[in-house]
Amino acid sequence: MTEQFIPSELFLRVERKRRQKPKIRDERITLAHGSGGKAMHQLIEGLFLEYLSNPLLEMLDDQAVFELGDEGHGVRLAFTTDSFVVTPIFFPGGDIGRLAVNGTVNDLAMSGARPLYLSAGFILEEGFLIGDLKRILESMRAAAEQAGVQVVTGDTKVVDKGAADKIFINTAGIGIIERPLHISASRAQVGDKVILSGSIGDHGTTILIARGELELETEITTDTAPLWSLVKEMLEVSTDIHCLRDPTRGGVATTLNEIAMSSDVCIAIEESQIPVCDEVRGACEILGLDPLYVANEGKLVAVVAAEVADQIVERMRQNPLGQQARIIGEVRAEPTGIVILNTAFGGTRIVDMLVGEQLPRIC
Amino acid sequence: MTEQFIPSELFLRVERKRRQKPKIRDERITLAHGSGGKAMHQLIEGLFLEYLSNPLLEMLDDQAVFELGDEGHGVRLAFTTDSFVVTPIFFPGGDIGRLAVNGTVNDLAMSGARPLYLSAGFILEEGFLIGDLKRILESMRAAAEQAGVQVVTGDTKVVDKGAADKIFINTAGIGIIERPLHISASRAQVGDKVILSGSIGDHGTTILIARGELELETEITTDTAPLWSLVKEMLEVSTDIHCLRDPTRGGVATTLNEIAMSSDVCIAIEESQIPVCDEVRGACEILGLDPLYVANEGKLVAVVAAEVADQIVERMRQNPLGQQARIIGEVRAEPTGIVILNTAFGGTRIVDMLVGEQLPRIC
Repeated sequence: MTEQFIPSELFLRVERKRRQKPKIRDERITLAHGSGGKAMHQLIEGLFLEYLSNPLLEMLDDQAVFELGDEGHGVRLAFTTDSFVVTPIFFPGGDIGRLAVNGTVNDLAMSGARPLYLSAGFILEEGFLIGDLKRILESMRAAAEQAGVQVVTGDTKVVDKGAADKIFINTAGIGIIERPLHISASRAQVGDKVILSGSIGDHGTTILIARGELELETEITTDTAPLWSLVKEMLEVSTDIHCLRDPTRGGVATTLNEIAMSSDVCIAIEESQIPVCDEVRGACEILGLDPLYVANEGKLVAVVAAEVADQIVERMRQNPLGQQARIIGEVRAEPTGIVILNTAFGGTRIVDMLVGEQLPRIC
Repeated sequence: MTEQFIPSELFLRVERKRRQKPKIRDERITLAHGSGGKAMHQLIEGLFLEYLSNPLLEMLDDQAVFELGDEGHGVRLAFTTDSFVVTPIFFPGGDIGRLAVNGTVNDLAMSGARPLYLSAGFILEEGFLIGDLKRILESMRAAAEQAGVQVVTGDTKVVDKGAADKIFINTAGIGIIERPLHISASRAQVGDKVILSGSIGDHGTTILIARGELELETEITTDTAPLWSLVKEMLEVSTDIHCLRDPTRGGVATTLNEIAMSSDVCIAIEESQIPVCDEVRGACEILGLDPLYVANEGKLVAVVAAEVADQIVERMRQNPLGQQARIIGEVRAEPTGIVILNTAFGGTRIVDMLVGEQLPRIC
């Protein structure tokens, strides 16, 4: 990857961005607040952190990591939660139940934790079909088995017809970190390489097409998958993995922005290196979407020390979930907090965090 | 408490009940499936357990308890989850946020665990007022501080207007069990005493009146409170505490039935010993409710070894949350799985689990 010229106009935008302190100016919640993008970050940093502030929450990682027990003999745990409100609840390759298990399993894995136990909280709408609930539970059972986790505690609430849309599932999860690791979005270092585990945009595109409003017919299916086996193998190669994140809501673009801001670095990526399968690319063109912003449910982005990057990629490619793994970019010193894309046509542009709401209720 | 004559007709009903295996015959979810009562137990035992079966889930306690780490040096943890869908979201003495913190704190405390960390998952309806969200967050902050816990990880989803009713909050929690304890609904033993920490029915009555459909004006407020300080003091007196449960949905009647079934014992209680404050009693009479089935959010039921019962009650009364604590009954051998009430008028009746749905969306 070659250093490219960054125009001064771009530096000005960067400076403006730097000075912004997240503030909530809206009076009401909008769909954008759940997008995974800029408005959601404002909600979290400008509101949630203001009230519930503590050192673990302030890390803004997708999971909290802490040690319990006697010093020296304690256990290091990861703890995370996600609610799932996807619509439709059944879609090619998966359903809300599979998503609810894999989503939380992946948030644990992204801290290097082996996922162990899940909780499951169901909010059901009065009138929801028991047959559909059975399908969803069967799919959770299969996903939990595949991921090697157990659902050990749960809760069920029913709300009156019209007070919820069919079914919402919350899962929380506990995992154990068995090696001395320190993986966080704040740990990207200048010179690190950025790895992507496979092609992007499958999940978001699948959901949008499954809504049927566009009368598109494709073979695209969700990529939902439990990523711990892949992470485990990466850690066997090296523990010099600095950041790990699964690019769900807001896509790879938003994830890279989170890392760039959290680590106070610049991330430069090569458009030509980012795999997008033909059908997804075609569907995104019709739908007017940029795959970089479309949600994935079985992919990961890793920022790793340059000297181990090739070895890690090689190992990832032996895992079915990492066959298309590759280095897509690198970490630079400046401009901090910014993601730069070197386009396939030789240009350079800033890749901002998702602004507004692209795909509501994608997970 | 004197042994009372149990009529043979009652024994027949008991036998019928014993032979029942929970089965889901409904085609659709009804409000009763979220009641905390019989239909919910059928849903859990007949469906959730069928698909997600594992030894920890099968305990059917309100939390899972497991050990992590090296043997002998490991830590024993409790893990639990609850979703909150209460309506209205603000009510006398509390709101959905305070409930969401205290509810999960209490489920942890009921295993003898010191509550440590919570997750919070928010499902927000498009258009929800940011001002209301601030009030709820402030109330979660205060509740977490009071309970000595931290919200360390979270998630926010926004659904389109009409797809949820304002705000739903899921909390999951992790607590640490620092003494050798084995508290479970399955551990009640013949001869044990049943302790209740205070007056019943406050929370459920508050919510029902707050809905304003009945144009009742009272001074009743929710009893929502974090119960760990009370449990901690009880454990300082004795670890011969066999069962602990907070009687939320389905009330004291349902909680005692759960313990009687789980432990395969009979629980006999004295109506005259169960404190109900005058205003709650009056409101329940007007509303046609039996306070025994009305939800509490700051009370606990304990089944303890007879020889330590008085000492525990004495200590509980020194805690503001246990001032009205008293022994309300005892554990007998037969008929198993049944709760018997000796009425204030000298009669005896079976207190069944809640059937149907009394108060939807009470928490």
